[in-house]
Amino acid sequence: LAEQWARNTTYPEGSIGRLMDPPHATFRPETTVGQAIEMLRSLVRTALITYGYVTDSDGRLLGLVTMRDLLFNDRANRLGDVMLKDPFALHPTLDVSDAMRLTLNRHFPVYPVTDEAGRLVGLVRGSVIFEEEAFEIAAQPGAMVGVEKEERIATPLFGSFKFRHPWLLINLVTAFAAGGVVAMFQGTVDKLVILATFLPVLAGQSGNTGCQALAVTVRGITLGEIKPGGAMKLVAKEFFLGMANGAVTGVLTGIAMYILAESQGSPHAALLGVVVCFAMMGSCAISGISGAIVPLTLKRLGADPATASSIVVTTATDVASMGLLLGLASLVIR
Amino acid sequence: LAEQWARNTTYPEGSIGRLMDPPHATFRPETTVGQAIEMLRSLVRTALITYGYVTDSDGRLLGLVTMRDLLFNDRANRLGDVMLKDPFALHPTLDVSDAMRLTLNRHFPVYPVTDEAGRLVGLVRGSVIFEEEAFEIAAQPGAMVGVEKEERIATPLFGSFKFRHPWLLINLVTAFAAGGVVAMFQGTVDKLVILATFLPVLAGQSGNTGCQALAVTVRGITLGEIKPGGAMKLVAKEFFLGMANGAVTGVLTGIAMYILAESQGSPHAALLGVVVCFAMMGSCAISGISGAIVPLTLKRLGADPATASSIVVTTATDVASMGLLLGLASLVIR
Repeated sequence: LAEQWARNTTYPEGSIGRLMDPPHATFRPETTVGQAIEMLRSLVRTALITYGYVTDSDGRLLGLVTMRDLLFNDRANRLGDVMLKDPFALHPTLDVSDAMRLTLNRHFPVYPVTDEAGRLVGLVRGSVIFEEEAFEIAAQPGAMVGVEKEERIATPLFGSFKFRHPWLLINLVTAFAAGGVVAMFQGTVDKLVILATFLPVLAGQSGNTGCQALAVTVRGITLGEIKPGGAMKLVAKEFFLGMANGAVTGVLTGIAMYILAESQGSPHAALLGVVVCFAMMGSCAISGISGAIVPLTLKRLGADPATASSIVVTTATDVASMGLLLGLASLVIR
Repeated sequence: LAEQWARNTTYPEGSIGRLMDPPHATFRPETTVGQAIEMLRSLVRTALITYGYVTDSDGRLLGLVTMRDLLFNDRANRLGDVMLKDPFALHPTLDVSDAMRLTLNRHFPVYPVTDEAGRLVGLVRGSVIFEEEAFEIAAQPGAMVGVEKEERIATPLFGSFKFRHPWLLINLVTAFAAGGVVAMFQGTVDKLVILATFLPVLAGQSGNTGCQALAVTVRGITLGEIKPGGAMKLVAKEFFLGMANGAVTGVLTGIAMYILAESQGSPHAALLGVVVCFAMMGSCAISGISGAIVPLTLKRLGADPATASSIVVTTATDVASMGLLLGLASLVIR
């Protein structure tokens, strides 16, 4: 067992190699069913044996025998003849999340793990893979906004502060980007102060649109649903979806702007309504694109697709929505 | 099998009862090991048998025998003497997520399911519980921003539109709440247009603070980490954490405000800096509270703690941050 643990630590963190139990109950193909039962008789007292594994003299995995095979086959049969040949095996360097996708439809209690040469190096319980992965996935909404995986409900106040504060400082820098956009157009806001009322409406709306696209994309990556070459299609879909959602909410927001501006006696009420409508459409389209592109890019860079993704997406949607609203207004209304 | 499916549909959606396989391989306690092996010999050809179950004449579960027990015990022994007595069993009305928490540290391949009278009504594979739950948990970041569980990468454009649009309309209504706050203080913004620049900074910062608290709380609920009576403690922790994070980022933002206002020749530069600092502290504290209270309340109401939680929390943080900034400014600077 100690030997197995030493071997496990040679594999990267988050890999299947880290989760391996020692491969008990290995036999040669020429062993008979009767011999295997006798060999197992003492072994089952000390270890939880689910399957027997058949290997050649170099330790290469040839097949797998179940207790059912041993119980219901003639004792004189050789394991090489009754075993399930070439069983499904995992590789020790595989990521736990990739292993989850491979085992999703298999539901075996235990998986053998073999190295590049096909040698049996350990066993991994299916439940352990899923348990690991359930914890990983449960950490995603937190990862998106800068909560470390390690933080739990029981983490003391100062521990939580240390975990979360660095991300909030990063968020502060990105929030200033949005503030900078407003500062750029301060003259426009000064002239048309009614625009300030609509800044949070557009930012909130495109922010949620972007986070919807983000959530769907992260989930698709997690469950292995994104096929090679499917990324462009996904981005295009989120673009059109953002535009469609932005068109409907844009018209409603544009009408609200028109009514409010009219009631304040603004000479530009109609034009302001149109500006708000187009700004909403544009910023929701940009939000859809960024919600899809950010996690896909993180994944391509080899990073966790959830990490800080929400911070990046909401910055993009803030900058896009406020920049479009104020930019369009300053262009059209002089 | 058809009979089991009919029985499963009598249990509520999302419950263990929905996931049950039929209980093959049930025996009486007086059956011998040898008899059980003979009875299993034909059964194992048609069904995947992992354990045998021992029940009394009313179908009440008494114990469980493994293939190892059958293989390594004398054939004349009675099952009642070799079985594991009173095995761990699940109840069919249990939520899958509660079942996950119960089975997290057991890792059995299959769990017997018994009704209130202790009768064996079906079997559930551990991997099925975890698989169901992994899908549920993977849907959480989406649920927070109004993406239905049913939506996948392959959902066609119009399908996605229909799923997401209702939530975006709800989000629009809540976004107008934030816009309404700015409209209320339009006079203040008109006088101190520099405040508009800091609206997105405060909103973005307190929004992310609130979403961190939200993510930690939802995860804690999912993993069963929140003890009875622990809710108040959690809310208090997030309040202090928000205040601490708000204090640090508030001072930084206050300094930025002072420098910008000073450079624009505002006579209120110092006062504006102080207002920004206190508004940030206050709104981050409120964000922390709402991030914890919203999922806890949803859970208490019997709803999924993730659903639309982000929409509610970001509205609260928008209203709090913009209301505090503009409200304080209008009070202090005349």
